[in-house]
Amino acid sequence: MKRSLPARPPILTLLTDFGIEDEYVAVLKGVILRHCRTAQIIDLSHLVPPQAVATAMLLLSRAFRHFPEKTVHLAVVDPEVGTDRAILAVDAYDHFFIGPDNGLFTPLLAKESGVSVYRLDQQTLPGNRVSATFHGRDIMAPVAARVAGGAPLSEFGTPVSIAECRKLDHVFPRKIGKTLEGRVVHIDHFGNLGSNLHRHDLLSLAPLEQLQVLVNQHNIPLRTTYAAVAVGQAVALFDSNDYLEIACYRGDGASQLGLGLGTPITVLTTSTREALGQQRKI
Amino acid sequence: MKRSLPARPPILTLLTDFGIEDEYVAVLKGVILRHCRTAQIIDLSHLVPPQAVATAMLLLSRAFRHFPEKTVHLAVVDPEVGTDRAILAVDAYDHFFIGPDNGLFTPLLAKESGVSVYRLDQQTLPGNRVSATFHGRDIMAPVAARVAGGAPLSEFGTPVSIAECRKLDHVFPRKIGKTLEGRVVHIDHFGNLGSNLHRHDLLSLAPLEQLQVLVNQHNIPLRTTYAAVAVGQAVALFDSNDYLEIACYRGDGASQLGLGLGTPITVLTTSTREALGQQRKI
Amino acid sequence: MKRSLPARPPILTLLTDFGIEDEYVAVLKGVILRHCRTAQIIDLSHLVPPQAVATAMLLLSRAFRHFPEKTVHLAVVDPEVGTDRAILAVDAYDHFFIGPDNGLFTPLLAKESGVSVYRLDQQTLPGNRVSATFHGRDIMAPVAARVAGGAPLSEFGTPVSIAECRKLDHVFPRKIGKTLEGRVVHIDHFGNLGSNLHRHDLLSLAPLEQLQVLVNQHNIPLRTTYAAVAVGQAVALFDSNDYLEIACYRGDGASQLGLGLGTPITVLTTSTREALGQQRKI
Repeated sequence: MKRSLPARPPILTLLTDFGIEDEYVAVLKGVILRHCRTAQIIDLSHLVPPQAVATAMLLLSRAFRHFPEKTVHLAVVDPEVGTDRAILAVDAYDHFFIGPDNGLFTPLLAKESGVSVYRLDQQTLPGNRVSATFHGRDIMAPVAARVAGGAPLSEFGTPVSIAECRKLDHVFPRKIGKTLEGRVVHIDHFGNLGSNLHRHDLLSLAPLEQLQVLVNQHNIPLRTTYAAVAVGQAVALFDSNDYLEIACYRGDGASQLGLGLGTPITVLTTSTREALGQQRKI
Repeated sequence: MKRSLPARPPILTLLTDFGIEDEYVAVLKGVILRHCRTAQIIDLSHLVPPQAVATAMLLLSRAFRHFPEKTVHLAVVDPEVGTDRAILAVDAYDHFFIGPDNGLFTPLLAKESGVSVYRLDQQTLPGNRVSATFHGRDIMAPVAARVAGGAPLSEFGTPVSIAECRKLDHVFPRKIGKTLEGRVVHIDHFGNLGSNLHRHDLLSLAPLEQLQVLVNQHNIPLRTTYAAVAVGQAVALFDSNDYLEIACYRGDGASQLGLGLGTPITVLTTSTREALGQQRKI
Repeated sequence: MKRSLPARPPILTLLTDFGIEDEYVAVLKGVILRHCRTAQIIDLSHLVPPQAVATAMLLLSRAFRHFPEKTVHLAVVDPEVGTDRAILAVDAYDHFFIGPDNGLFTPLLAKESGVSVYRLDQQTLPGNRVSATFHGRDIMAPVAARVAGGAPLSEFGTPVSIAECRKLDHVFPRKIGKTLEGRVVHIDHFGNLGSNLHRHDLLSLAPLEQLQVLVNQHNIPLRTTYAAVAVGQAVALFDSNDYLEIACYRGDGASQLGLGLGTPITVLTTSTREALGQQRKI
C-alpha cells in the first residue's frame, strides 16, 4: 500500500481562536491528517481573541496571498456553533477558504466575479457524527482536508450567491470630499497600530507628500521606514501589505501613544487641513 | 541517495510543559528529524502548567484518538527527570505513547487486554550521551522517532505489566447510590470548565431529562448547545468528547462563575434531589 | 506534473520576535513554501522579546546543532530593518544561517576556519518587490527557501570576511586569575537561569569538586541533577547543553532567588575563596 508522494504536498492553514494551551488545535490537525495524510498544515494564528470575527477576517485577508495557489485556509472562529448559521466554502483568488458564515470572508466577497461560494451540507460526510460544540473538528476540518486532497467544493455543498453571505461593516474606510476616514483595526505584537487605509486609498486623495495623517488631532509624520524618525518617535508608514500603520520607532506605539482598536485615523491634504484651521503638533 | 517517500509519512505528536519561548521544543523536533527525517511533527500542547502531570494526562487522552492509527505520541512532562523513575513505551488503541512513568498514561492503562507496555532501557541507543536534565531529548525523542519510523517497541526495552505502572488517582468519578460525584479537571482557553463525567456515566443514572447538575448547590441547566441559554448564562452540556462541561454562553465560565480546578460537580436525578430537600436556583 | 519527493525534505527553522498572535510568522512560511514547496518548517521560537538580538543569538546557538546537517536556520530579529544594515548568509558547522548583520551569529563567527559568510544582494531575486518594513518576508525567506532547496549561498550575495561582521560583546565569560566571571544570559519557561559558563570553562579552573559557584555572594551547591537537593532548594548544575544553570528543584529559580538577566555568576576554587576570606552560606 505504498506509493510515491506528489511533488506538491497539499497545504492547509489554520486560523482559530482556540488558544494553544488546550488540545483543540491538535485535534483539528489529527482530523485533517486522517483525511489527507500528506497535508502540510501551517498555523496562521490561534490567538485571535475569543470570538473576534473581525480580527480573524483581517489576519486571513492579509496572509493568504503569500501562500502557494490552491492552499486551503480553514478559519474556525465560530461564536454561533450549534445554531443554524451556515458553513461556507469559498473559491477566490485561486485559494480555498472554509469557515462559518459570519463575516470572516468579507474582503474576499467584495469582488463580484471569479468568486464561487458553496454552503456546506453539514451531513455530507458519511459516517461522521457531528457534535453540537465543535463543527471545526466534525465538519470543517474533514471537508478542508478533502479539498486539499483535490476534491471539488461542489462535492460538499450547494452554490450560494455572494449577496446571501454575511459581511462585516466597517471593513473599508470612508471618503468624504478630500478627507479619508479610517481606523485602527489591529494592534500587533510590537504595539504597531494597523489601519484599514490602503496606499491606494491615500493616493486617491493626492500625492503622498501633500497628505497629513491625523490621530486625535495630532499630526503623525508620514515616512517610508521606522528609522526615518528618532527612536521613540511616532511615525506613520505603509506596512508590508501597503496599509497605513502608526508606530513608534523601536517602541510600542499602542502603549506609548495611548491608542487602541477603533481609534479613528484621518488623512487629508495639507491644504484641506489649513482650510479647516486646525494646527497642533504632536 | 534519493528514494521515494512512502505515501504515509510517520506522524508524531509532542506534549510538554516546556513553554514556547525557549529552544527546548525545537530541540526535540531537531532530534526527531535526525532519527526520522520524514516525520510530520504536530504540537499537542507545550503550555501544560510546569510539571502538571494530570493536565497532560487529560489533554493526551482527549486528543490521541483523533490522529491516524500508528501515530506516536511523545509526552514529556517529567518532574522527576534525573531520578530513577522509569520511561515507558505503550502500545494501546493502535497508537504508540512514549513518556515517563508518572501517571501520564493512566487512562490508557485502564483496559486490561490489548495494551502492551515496555520500560525503556535508557542506554539502548548506541553512542547516545544522556544528560541528567533532558531525557526528552536524549532518550524519549530518539526512541519515539524510531518507533515512528517503524521500529518495534520491543527493540528499546523490556515488557512490564500494567500493574507495575504508576497511575493517578481521581481520574474517574465516584458513583454513590443514585448520585455521581465528579469534578472540574480542566479549564480551557475560553474559560469552559471540563469535567471527568462522561455521558455514559450520566446515562448510567437515568435518562438525561431526569438529571440535575449541581455545582456549589446551584442547578446548572443541562442543554445540548451553548446557544440554548441566554448570552452570559451558565449551561451544562456535553463537550465534543462527550464529557460534561460547564460554560457561560459567549462568556468565560471560569471567571464569571468563580469556579476552579477541582470544583466538585454532582449529578443526581430530580427525584433524588427532591428527596434530599435542597432547592436553590442559580 | 507529479514526481517523487526526495527522501530528505529540506528543513528550515524559524526564529523571530514576531510573537504568535499576528499573521507574520504564517506569512514567512507561506513565502518559504512558494519558493520551496517540500520544505519542512520548524519553529525555533517566535517569542524572543521584541528586538532582543542577544536572546535570539543564544537560542539559535543552543538549538541548531540538534537539527540534521544542511538545515537552514532563518533568524529574523531585525530592529534596523529599513536601514542599510547588511543581511548575511552563513555556512558554518554544516548548517546554513540567514539573518541581519546585527550580532545574531556571534558564536558562529568565533571560529576562524570552515565558516563562509556572504552579504546578500538585496535585489538578487528577480521580480521581488522589497518593502521597507519586512525584509524577513521579502528578502530573507525567499533566499532561505532556495538555499534549503539546494541553491548555493554564492548565488545570492558576495563573500565577506568574518572580521567585517558585527558581533555582540559579553557573549563569553571572563577569566581573571583563578576566578571565572560569567552571568545569567537567559531565564527559561521554568524560571531556570542559564549562564554563559560552559563546563569546559569550569574545568579549566579545577576539577568540579574543588569549585564553588557564587551568586550575590551566596554559595550555590554544584550538583549533577535537580533532585540532588531538597524540593525548593537552589542548585547549580550543567544544563543539557553543558552550560552552568542555577535552578530551584521543582520551583521557579528566577522568582524564588530574586535573580534576573545579567546577574553575575562567579566560579572559583574553594582555596581561592578561603584566601579571599569571604564565607556566607545561602
